[in-house]
Amino acid sequence: MSAQSELLQKIDAHIEQNLAYWIGQLARLCAQPSVSAQNQGIEACAELVATMLREQGYTANILPSAGYPVVVGEGRGTAADKTLLFYLHYDVQPPDPLELWESDPYILTEQDGVLYARGVSDDKGHIICRLAALAAVKDTLGELPCGIKFIIEGEEEIGSPNMPAFVEKHQDLLAADACIWEFGGVDYDGRPRQALGMRGICYVELSVQSLNRDAHSGLGGSIFPNAAWRLTWALSTLKDRHERILIPGFYENVLPPSPRDLELLARLPEETAQLKEAYGLGEFLLHLEGGLALQRTAVFEPTCTICGLTAGYQGIGAKTVLPAKASAKVDFRLVPNQTPDEIVAKLRAHLDAQGLHDVNVTLLGGGRPAKVDPDDPFVKIANETAVAVYGCDPIVEPIIGGSGPNYPFIHTLGLPLVSAGVGYPGSNVHAPNENMTIKNFLQGTKHTARIIERFGRG
Amino acid sequence: MSAQSELLQKIDAHIEQNLAYWIGQLARLCAQPSVSAQNQGIEACAELVATMLREQGYTANILPSAGYPVVVGEGRGTAADKTLLFYLHYDVQPPDPLELWESDPYILTEQDGVLYARGVSDDKGHIICRLAALAAVKDTLGELPCGIKFIIEGEEEIGSPNMPAFVEKHQDLLAADACIWEFGGVDYDGRPRQALGMRGICYVELSVQSLNRDAHSGLGGSIFPNAAWRLTWALSTLKDRHERILIPGFYENVLPPSPRDLELLARLPEETAQLKEAYGLGEFLLHLEGGLALQRTAVFEPTCTICGLTAGYQGIGAKTVLPAKASAKVDFRLVPNQTPDEIVAKLRAHLDAQGLHDVNVTLLGGGRPAKVDPDDPFVKIANETAVAVYGCDPIVEPIIGGSGPNYPFIHTLGLPLVSAGVGYPGSNVHAPNENMTIKNFLQGTKHTARIIERFGRG
Repeated sequence: MSAQSELLQKIDAHIEQNLAYWIGQLARLCAQPSVSAQNQGIEACAELVATMLREQGYTANILPSAGYPVVVGEGRGTAADKTLLFYLHYDVQPPDPLELWESDPYILTEQDGVLYARGVSDDKGHIICRLAALAAVKDTLGELPCGIKFIIEGEEEIGSPNMPAFVEKHQDLLAADACIWEFGGVDYDGRPRQALGMRGICYVELSVQSLNRDAHSGLGGSIFPNAAWRLTWALSTLKDRHERILIPGFYENVLPPSPRDLELLARLPEETAQLKEAYGLGEFLLHLEGGLALQRTAVFEPTCTICGLTAGYQGIGAKTVLPAKASAKVDFRLVPNQTPDEIVAKLRAHLDAQGLHDVNVTLLGGGRPAKVDPDDPFVKIANETAVAVYGCDPIVEPIIGGSGPNYPFIHTLGLPLVSAGVGYPGSNVHAPNENMTIKNFLQGTKHTARIIERFGRG
Repeated sequence: MSAQSELLQKIDAHIEQNLAYWIGQLARLCAQPSVSAQNQGIEACAELVATMLREQGYTANILPSAGYPVVVGEGRGTAADKTLLFYLHYDVQPPDPLELWESDPYILTEQDGVLYARGVSDDKGHIICRLAALAAVKDTLGELPCGIKFIIEGEEEIGSPNMPAFVEKHQDLLAADACIWEFGGVDYDGRPRQALGMRGICYVELSVQSLNRDAHSGLGGSIFPNAAWRLTWALSTLKDRHERILIPGFYENVLPPSPRDLELLARLPEETAQLKEAYGLGEFLLHLEGGLALQRTAVFEPTCTICGLTAGYQGIGAKTVLPAKASAKVDFRLVPNQTPDEIVAKLRAHLDAQGLHDVNVTLLGGGRPAKVDPDDPFVKIANETAVAVYGCDPIVEPIIGGSGPNYPFIHTLGLPLVSAGVGYPGSNVHAPNENMTIKNFLQGTKHTARIIERFGRG
């Protein structure tokens, strides 16, 4: 056995031997609510994360942003001229609907090798994964092989509205050579996934107030403006039943996928059966059945998703009310080179042109789409180390359907980003019963450790 | 002073002297929740109403219907061949949104001559008004001048789905010569209103389930069916922005108002300024400014009102979820000769024709529109007695915008119906801070008493 193989075996063994300790740390972190959408537990969670970094020997500061605080940490390593940055987030999605959880979302619960809690995968599981991997590498080598930086924000689940400005402002503090992103993991068959880009997001609330109070529907039905109707009509002008977004100019900055993107997409495994089963899906939209057409639509098409609707009476039975207020949450996923500012402006202009001046638009979160070069040397490191851990080549996705603030890291800091982590398709992220398997935790941590070790060797 | 005048003065004095007693009885009745939409307190309220009738010397039975129980009461009078029927309801609208109430909706609260509670006007105030009027007439004359019957149901606020069948089944029990309806009262200027007809109602829930659980909007936005979009598209096919209902055949049974209807409408006072102020309204729909055009549209046009919308995330901030379920409450107000069954069938056929087979339609309540002949002798009695109480001619409305189960009373039992009561435009019925003024209670009770006395004299 080579010295290198032996070293990696020791790192793996360290991760396995310390599993109980890290699960305990994960339970501690998940017990602290940190719902950014509802400003619940945010400050306390930032404090806890800083404390946990310091306990592992890193410096940690809680820096203000225009929104929630950002934890920035640092550790020195052997190679003074090489720095690896970890982007993570300490906030989580709201746990509701609570009645669908089978255990308390804030008490880490294990069943049959699976850990359940809000944030156990997205993203507290990844924070612990990084700390566990770094501890294994440091303890095994005696010292970290390179400089380490952390940026752990509290607004990822609400669209990271302040990350671009924060990164812009703290470019020197965050300067690095490469970045490991906040997520990663495996597909339905246990193959590692490498995500090289993300769609952008423009999350808005549309709201209408047509009266100063609700009216009796018998009184006003024929003659009073109804907020729920105004909202319905506004929404119906945004997208047709063929999924075509109708906002003028919406598609004008859309860049089609490159030949290299399409080549990578064509190699992706078919997951249609698993998706259909997981979501009880009869058929995909647009009669898509699978193959490159489905893969391409899933990630290279921008979207307009109604995430929520609220108006009037929502209890059981009938209430004959004409609602004074109505609102909708609408999430646009953007592809290169669309921008959230552009979309909000076009949406506003569209509603005005439709005579829907009374429909207010509030931007709740936005981020630009961005992609990493699939042939970057750091991407190669991440892919090669995955083979050793997972026993097969990773699936390389040129862009994924989800969003995150990768744009300022790729474009402002100029870093290659890779994904590595503990996720799997059954994690129920953003949904009740969010979970992570212990197997995936161990694999994701070993993969992260190997990227650190390999990057440190240069 | 004539004997007749003296008699009426004694009746009025009786009503005034017993005010505190009747307010106490109203407090007792309002303290009992009876929310039909939520099946809350229904049985207990039926029992209480029966007890209160018996305390006043009437027989009272609680009869089953296919839904909630119906209280049927009876009392004998001098004229054995003349019977007056009172239709009332003991159920109330849900009190929510609770946070907008300035007092507990189930504790009768007085402030500056105004009584506040859920149901204080609609319809518990009218139950007490009838009992107070009857007691005054009986005590003054020594005996009731005619037979009295009560039918007090518990499903009016959910569209009285079982009233037609109940009336059909109990025609003998309910046989009478005339009927005083469950409401009545004054307009903004204190003039009494006489409502001679009501629009029908067809209240449905539209619901869609597109997945077995919510999905991440980044994952499914481009390829998964979204229940909120399906619902939005379905709704947008029901009515256009010119308020035209688009369901094929929707208008085919609509009967235009008669010349007599238009004559009565033309005499109605202009209430546009009051309505605009009460609801913070900029302008009426369809650029209507007032006059006969507005009056006619308000009551002789059928409607399609969205009463409620529910889907996905409705909290503060952003949640990137693709909703598996969405639903809407939709209330169609019908004019002669539309029927709820016809509308449900046409709605279903329309959605199917639009390819919206996945949008489920559930009928939550329905009732046919109906009108009384404005020249019926009993209508004349009600109008003439109003002059004495209110000091002016009543406003006669050939049909009003609201709905109620008058069809079986007018068409199955063959009765003329009149309105008389305690309402006024500021009552906030179906809304927070429902209220009744003591002045209106006294007037409505005096008017009711005079109708009884006059009807009994023949």
